[in-house]
Amino acid sequence: MCELLAMSANVPTDICFSFAGLMQRGGNTGPHKDGWGVTFYEGKGCRTFKDPQPSYDSEIARLVTNYPIKSEAVVCHIRQANAGPVCLENTHPFTRELWGRNFTYAHNGQLANFKELLTTESLSAIGSTDSEQAFCWILEKLRLEFGNERPSNDLLFPFIASLAEQINKLGVFNLILSDGDFIFAYCSNNLHWITRRAPFGPAKLIDADVAIDFKKETTDKDIVTVIATQPLTLNEKWQKMQAGDWHVFIHGEKLI
Amino acid sequence: MCELLAMSANVPTDICFSFAGLMQRGGNTGPHKDGWGVTFYEGKGCRTFKDPQPSYDSEIARLVTNYPIKSEAVVCHIRQANAGPVCLENTHPFTRELWGRNFTYAHNGQLANFKELLTTESLSAIGSTDSEQAFCWILEKLRLEFGNERPSNDLLFPFIASLAEQINKLGVFNLILSDGDFIFAYCSNNLHWITRRAPFGPAKLIDADVAIDFKKETTDKDIVTVIATQPLTLNEKWQKMQAGDWHVFIHGEKLI
Repeated sequence: MCELLAMSANVPTDICFSFAGLMQRGGNTGPHKDGWGVTFYEGKGCRTFKDPQPSYDSEIARLVTNYPIKSEAVVCHIRQANAGPVCLENTHPFTRELWGRNFTYAHNGQLANFKELLTTESLSAIGSTDSEQAFCWILEKLRLEFGNERPSNDLLFPFIASLAEQINKLGVFNLILSDGDFIFAYCSNNLHWITRRAPFGPAKLIDADVAIDFKKETTDKDIVTVIATQPLTLNEKWQKMQAGDWHVFIHGEKLI
Repeated sequence: MCELLAMSANVPTDICFSFAGLMQRGGNTGPHKDGWGVTFYEGKGCRTFKDPQPSYDSEIARLVTNYPIKSEAVVCHIRQANAGPVCLENTHPFTRELWGRNFTYAHNGQLANFKELLTTESLSAIGSTDSEQAFCWILEKLRLEFGNERPSNDLLFPFIASLAEQINKLGVFNLILSDGDFIFAYCSNNLHWITRRAPFGPAKLIDADVAIDFKKETTDKDIVTVIATQPLTLNEKWQKMQAGDWHVFIHGEKLI
């Protein structure tokens, strides 16, 4: 299994605090030592830092922890390999272009018979994971359903959810999908979220001896949602998603 | 205009020395202050570090300079913007999937009327540069010509060269293209290369007070080719490519 982390914010916000906690689960407080990656959006553009090395001991993870990259949408993953060996092409998140946007995807869980998720068009997985195959399948289904133009949110998100439900029948499929504007989260069995807004308070990580006072780091207008497989902080109330639940977050707020 | 740098090697090799020189041209010894990026391959996988900030003063560029990431194929670019504003989605290199591989592309030069490079299929540029539009056009032409299977080298490389020639008619088009296995280089007006092999000697950067003795860093079997818009070292003999020349490098050696 793996762990997921995502952020949606209404102002460019760094994810250093949450990232510092999650990274410890990559071989230190957790067993997810088979690589990690994080994608930061800036508008339509994005950049991904990834490493097939354990995150808790990664030079690149240290840079990401200490160097505040401000973003309105972030997708992060640490891996405990099941399908596919430990290597760079099997390291999440995966990003592909659709409708002139970067779509970024990360998956927690595992899928049996994932070769059933055939792609018939000109879209191939590069690595050998169940996860990337499912991502390619989603992209192809989106293109077949809606053609070359992005549909409205009313059509798009329920359709993505229906695809996630189909994939979920093959095993465990906790999903984060983003185009830099929205964060879509589908819960198979394990996903939590929290929205932070004024009045902000203090928070303390579960996985590292690090505390923060969000009051000092934010303005009263900031709204930031964090989504994670497991809560990252001790003293805050996280919302637990139920099996089959899905939500969409935009600019820090839950849209659906 | 911009600067290009690429490396092909027969053993995983870091590019710290060459990168240290190039990065100085990003706002210090050169005017290319509008962002930079570098893609490192490990087999079929790749990872890209990029920043819309000037490279000579980038925290991420410092990491890449000091942290030796070993790779057999590297594509690097520093940008001086002409078409398209300075932002992450306009920052090279660009990577897209084709035939189950990551294709990575960087361009030096500028193209007039680049909207002529229409893509009619399901492939859109994300940013607003002439460069990315030309990349999408190349990928579409490759797919239309060869379908969903990669052709042999004998068919592939002359066809890529013919596409580069067509694009070059719109302006200046120095090109680096890689799938992690090959590095393809097309010279519009400005491209140099050097192959280093035993017996190795010392080298000194033009842009920074840094010298290296490759003898201490290599084994006798290592073969490494570096391609750059302008030579990066003082005391080595670089090959100058002529307008219209193209070469393909694989595992450090010139194939064509």
